[in-house]
Amino acid sequence: MAIRLKYWGWGYENESLTATEKSQLLSALAEGYGIRPGPELPVPGLAEIDLADSRLRLPAPIDHFSTAEPYERVLHSFGQSQPDSIRIFARDFSHAPDAVAYPRHEADLITLFDWASEAQVALIPYGGGSSVVGGVTPDINGGFRGTVTVNTSRMNGVLEVDPLSRAARIQGGARGPELEAGLKPHGLTLRHFPQSFEHSTLGGWIATRSGGHFATLYTHIDDLVENVTMVTPGGRIVSRRLPGSGAGPSPDRLMLGSEGSLGIITEAWVRLQARVRFKATAGFRYPDFLQAARSVRAISQTGLYPSNVRIVDGVELGINGAGDGSFALLVISFESSDHPVDVWMARAAECARDGGGIPDVEGGSDPDAHLKGSVGAWRNAFIRMPYNREFLTPLGIISDTFETAITWDRFEPLYHEVGQTTRAAIRSVTGAEGAVSCRFSHVYPDGPAPYFAFHCAADPASMQEQWWEIKQAVSDAVMAAGGTITHHHAIGRDHRPWYDQQRPGLFGEVLAKAKGQLDPKGILNPGVLVDTP
Amino acid sequence: MAIRLKYWGWGYENESLTATEKSQLLSALAEGYGIRPGPELPVPGLAEIDLADSRLRLPAPIDHFSTAEPYERVLHSFGQSQPDSIRIFARDFSHAPDAVAYPRHEADLITLFDWASEAQVALIPYGGGSSVVGGVTPDINGGFRGTVTVNTSRMNGVLEVDPLSRAARIQGGARGPELEAGLKPHGLTLRHFPQSFEHSTLGGWIATRSGGHFATLYTHIDDLVENVTMVTPGGRIVSRRLPGSGAGPSPDRLMLGSEGSLGIITEAWVRLQARVRFKATAGFRYPDFLQAARSVRAISQTGLYPSNVRIVDGVELGINGAGDGSFALLVISFESSDHPVDVWMARAAECARDGGGIPDVEGGSDPDAHLKGSVGAWRNAFIRMPYNREFLTPLGIISDTFETAITWDRFEPLYHEVGQTTRAAIRSVTGAEGAVSCRFSHVYPDGPAPYFAFHCAADPASMQEQWWEIKQAVSDAVMAAGGTITHHHAIGRDHRPWYDQQRPGLFGEVLAKAKGQLDPKGILNPGVLVDTP
Repeated sequence: MAIRLKYWGWGYENESLTATEKSQLLSALAEGYGIRPGPELPVPGLAEIDLADSRLRLPAPIDHFSTAEPYERVLHSFGQSQPDSIRIFARDFSHAPDAVAYPRHEADLITLFDWASEAQVALIPYGGGSSVVGGVTPDINGGFRGTVTVNTSRMNGVLEVDPLSRAARIQGGARGPELEAGLKPHGLTLRHFPQSFEHSTLGGWIATRSGGHFATLYTHIDDLVENVTMVTPGGRIVSRRLPGSGAGPSPDRLMLGSEGSLGIITEAWVRLQARVRFKATAGFRYPDFLQAARSVRAISQTGLYPSNVRIVDGVELGINGAGDGSFALLVISFESSDHPVDVWMARAAECARDGGGIPDVEGGSDPDAHLKGSVGAWRNAFIRMPYNREFLTPLGIISDTFETAITWDRFEPLYHEVGQTTRAAIRSVTGAEGAVSCRFSHVYPDGPAPYFAFHCAADPASMQEQWWEIKQAVSDAVMAAGGTITHHHAIGRDHRPWYDQQRPGLFGEVLAKAKGQLDPKGILNPGVLVDTP
Repeated sequence: MAIRLKYWGWGYENESLTATEKSQLLSALAEGYGIRPGPELPVPGLAEIDLADSRLRLPAPIDHFSTAEPYERVLHSFGQSQPDSIRIFARDFSHAPDAVAYPRHEADLITLFDWASEAQVALIPYGGGSSVVGGVTPDINGGFRGTVTVNTSRMNGVLEVDPLSRAARIQGGARGPELEAGLKPHGLTLRHFPQSFEHSTLGGWIATRSGGHFATLYTHIDDLVENVTMVTPGGRIVSRRLPGSGAGPSPDRLMLGSEGSLGIITEAWVRLQARVRFKATAGFRYPDFLQAARSVRAISQTGLYPSNVRIVDGVELGINGAGDGSFALLVISFESSDHPVDVWMARAAECARDGGGIPDVEGGSDPDAHLKGSVGAWRNAFIRMPYNREFLTPLGIISDTFETAITWDRFEPLYHEVGQTTRAAIRSVTGAEGAVSCRFSHVYPDGPAPYFAFHCAADPASMQEQWWEIKQAVSDAVMAAGGTITHHHAIGRDHRPWYDQQRPGLFGEVLAKAKGQLDPKGILNPGVLVDTP
């Protein structure tokens, strides 16, 4: 039997944190912040999950590419959010989808849309299932007669490669490693590496405006899209494949960020890179996060466009075993398929030193610089982070992240207010201190994308309510400080209340009209993005 | 009396081509291509223009900021397109607006929208009036009781500057020189320099997705916009000011490209640059335009992001007195506010030489390199080009341009097919050869934005019909070859038939819904972008 995906956490069943990683994490939380695990909840066995009978009988043409097998229904009951994880360990699968469809091509999708529109069945588009905001959690209100999750993983090919333009036509269901494997023989790469890379898809990235590898310039998948093909209940939308255009409001920008509520993205032409040949990474330590942030601002306005320019504060370094908590770390990388990047790095490093940074790793052209020092330690932890939650949740430890973007003039107030609010909310909700940390995930000339993480010990009996109280407080604080409710995690169901505040009211009405046009019966991802008018 | 704007051409009444420029242009056209002027039509005097009586009596609160003075109605009867120019010299002002409003603030706009919606009056948003695609030409069908052009030039302030984020809040009616003057004391600049810079506005740039100074990276105004405020008949839309976001489909991207048909852009926060301190320009000659294009492709994929990387073919150089027709010219520039750009230039120049380019100017760090050789000669002609039309049209010479963008894999076929179609259309329509030229205005890693120009001698009696026949043929050819109907000239009234083909049908229906929501009576710029459902 093939190794299966976990339904209680990240990745495959045979993968998790090592014993060493687990004990490092627990001792960092306990020693640094007094956050101690409670009694451990066991992983729910498939047999002990109380799964309601499927409410749907799928017609033969759909049944043909669908399944109601318990493992599949359980696997597709959740994404990867903190509340998802809490409900998994609380064995609450009450909203499991009635079936999971695996369409093989657009014709299957159209059959599915037609049937679901007629039969009042909600459809949940599902790429890799990596949503951390409830985007694929089929928790539906309204008069639906059932729910089918639509897993796009069978539509996962690299269909065409254009080496001259460095572009490829790729199906929406292709996961990161799949599409990279398809591009490799051509010497090309998309180099879009969200933390979810292994278990997320091109279509999912486009639907959620995913943020990737590049900390500057091509930050979002938006910037890598030449065109999009989306199948909707109302028909097919194919935008013209172009390197740039000025012909009216961009049709791609309606599909980018549509979060499965307007249609399913079946294909896109995307912009590629040649393989990286030159690389340089350097790390700098700062006594203070805000001091590091000022160096990042200086670098962001040089026009050097580093592929990586991130800062991580002492708390996050400490929790991840990459620092002793006494310093913040700035990581700068440049990469090129064309030319040595030493001159670029020298100037950026000068900015860092001018701002008071002390070299941690100064790799120059050492190809392994990014693996050394605190830089390397944090990088390794970053790759492993998605496995933390399934370890901490059953121990009663909330471990969540949220992120935003803000212009430089309002960044420091936001940093203070959001940090204080998060700490105060944890204290007020749980009665104890938590650990709250911040890093930058992406940086623009006019402002950073701050990324916050928090850990705290929860009451196992009310862990969900405690999480939600904290989540509300921090989201309110982000909005009040002028940030966006999400820079790249998407809206999903969890961010919807704040998205509704952030979105200009009239634009919301236009989106509702778009929804009415493309999905007149409102069957697609109900609760996400916008409601059917 | 203050010097007034010309109603028959570009800029102010006291500005035009010099005698030397005129004779250079005529002899280049005659000697190179046998294109000779016919008898000259005089500029129409204001008194000889047959202007219908205004059909509207404006209510006092609107009359207060409006005028029906003949000069104003005549001035606002046309933009700067070839068909506009032909009609001006044919003295056809039959569609002149009934009045011109100069709102002072958003409250005036709201008053205007409410009245016009009620009174069935069409409103034509007008920034600098530089549209070359009929975007401000009040040629309206449908049951309107009159037309008022809405000139935004009184709402032209730089309201706020944020030096930390390098951003400013600027009113939509600010022209290029006005906003740059407002930014200068802060040591900042937008550096968005479309050819229309002097007589176009920030709001117009946003409404038409203007293409600016930078040939790579920040090509369109889109990339410089942090937020947009738009007043519509249905209400006000203000997007959140952010350096980046991933929260749903971008509201800004609905307003970018809306071409005055959804609302009037009253304000935007835009991203600025520090003043340029380092600069390098080099020019290379190639025997063949396509060979030069291959060098541009190589440079576009290096990740060097030159501020300028344009090629101009021998025909265009010849007509503009910047070459003898025997070579194509590649111009490469780098600029920075932060660091010397020699290393960048050295690598780009290497690509140019590897591709067979022969140095024309190799300026290195010579700050005046861009003023020398063929590079400098073409640059000077470029700045003066907007004055050509008012000189050539009355001599019976059609002089028009059109532009597109295309991926590299389809560029060479497009170049051949569009070029051949243009030459054949001129031959078939006018019975003589014309001059057809091509340059690149902007360049992306995945393809260029080719910009075509053509000149031909027309029959003065049917100049408009001849132009339209050629325009149809070349637009069909651009579409058939896979290009966009516009990269940065916008759609206006002239490109509407091809935009309707290019736009995905369902997206068109969504836009129509947006129009219905924001402008329910369809009073805004009728005929442009999308029709009221």
